[in-house]
Amino acid sequence: MNYTFIALVENKPGVLNRVASLFRRRNFNIESLAVGRTENPQVSRMTVVVDCPNGDMDAHRIESNLYKLVNVIDVQDVTNQPSVTRDLALIKVKVGPERRAEVNGLAEIFRARIVDVAVDSVIVEITGTEDKIEGMIELLRPLGIVEMVRTGQVAMTRGENVGVRRVAGVSGNRYEINEELPVMAP
Amino acid sequence: MNYTFIALVENKPGVLNRVASLFRRRNFNIESLAVGRTENPQVSRMTVVVDCPNGDMDAHRIESNLYKLVNVIDVQDVTNQPSVTRDLALIKVKVGPERRAEVNGLAEIFRARIVDVAVDSVIVEITGTEDKIEGMIELLRPLGIVEMVRTGQVAMTRGENVGVRRVAGVSGNRYEINEELPVMAP
Repeated sequence: MNYTFIALVENKPGVLNRVASLFRRRNFNIESLAVGRTENPQVSRMTVVVDCPNGDMDAHRIESNLYKLVNVIDVQDVTNQPSVTRDLALIKVKVGPERRAEVNGLAEIFRARIVDVAVDSVIVEITGTEDKIEGMIELLRPLGIVEMVRTGQVAMTRGENVGVRRVAGVSGNRYEINEELPVMAP
Repeated sequence: MNYTFIALVENKPGVLNRVASLFRRRNFNIESLAVGRTENPQVSRMTVVVDCPNGDMDAHRIESNLYKLVNVIDVQDVTNQPSVTRDLALIKVKVGPERRAEVNGLAEIFRARIVDVAVDSVIVEITGTEDKIEGMIELLRPLGIVEMVRTGQVAMTRGENVGVRRVAGVSGNRYEINEELPVMAP
């Protein structure tokens, strides 16, 4: 079963390496990984989707092992929490002018967007849950998918709930990080 | 200056670890990284944005070093190629009912979408180039951004051009990978 983790990490060289080695050592296969900036330039946020063959047991192990890493500020398993998950895909489809309308129609239904048109191909941009994107891909496949790229999933818990609990310097619903922060990991 | 690389890698455990160690060893800082599936389940695609202080010289080094790694099928530097780049952000803004319309108005202008509403907050989903997303963030900031997650950039070359050149088994515009493929890396 796939589990989704959100990890807040300090934006320093070597952090990704540590996280990747951890999964490698423990022999977990990463299904998708997205690392991007947050509202704080010193902090990056990773969303990692991992296949956990032993379910919750594996998930707990991953969570606590990640949390022990240097530069990791917070980890949360959001698999069973009400959350918004999104993935972005760019799909290049080989269609000439005669079938472009077909792609356009599909894009409208899926609320996708055509972001590039060439003589013999178009690029479709779609965001949504895995299921929605898979659905669109299935329908585009017969037209001829030439190339595809996906960002990997990002997740955010719904409502007030901020996906950050253990960070020092939390003020209200907002988390802040500054140089004086005590280092959280060993 | 930031350079953008697309790498096609075999979907096997340890690949991410190898890529991350490479950047660590060479002391390059990864600005963003997205790893996701492609149209071929055996192949994952990474989009890596890296800060290259020495410009093209660094970029060439990265490209050739990546290409030498086991499990790396293809690498392309798309920094100076006409390409579509997209990033997805989920932004949680702390607004009550009285200012929700304001967020809604901004979302419309930026073609963003409100994907969750709670009593005291909303989640906005936006896709686009870095600039567009930064623009929206600047306007939402005064309202109170509580939490943000970004996927990191993905890129695809425009038009017919498929971002894959050196893969064996290329047939027409479509690339195929099968078990009989000769291993490309050292």
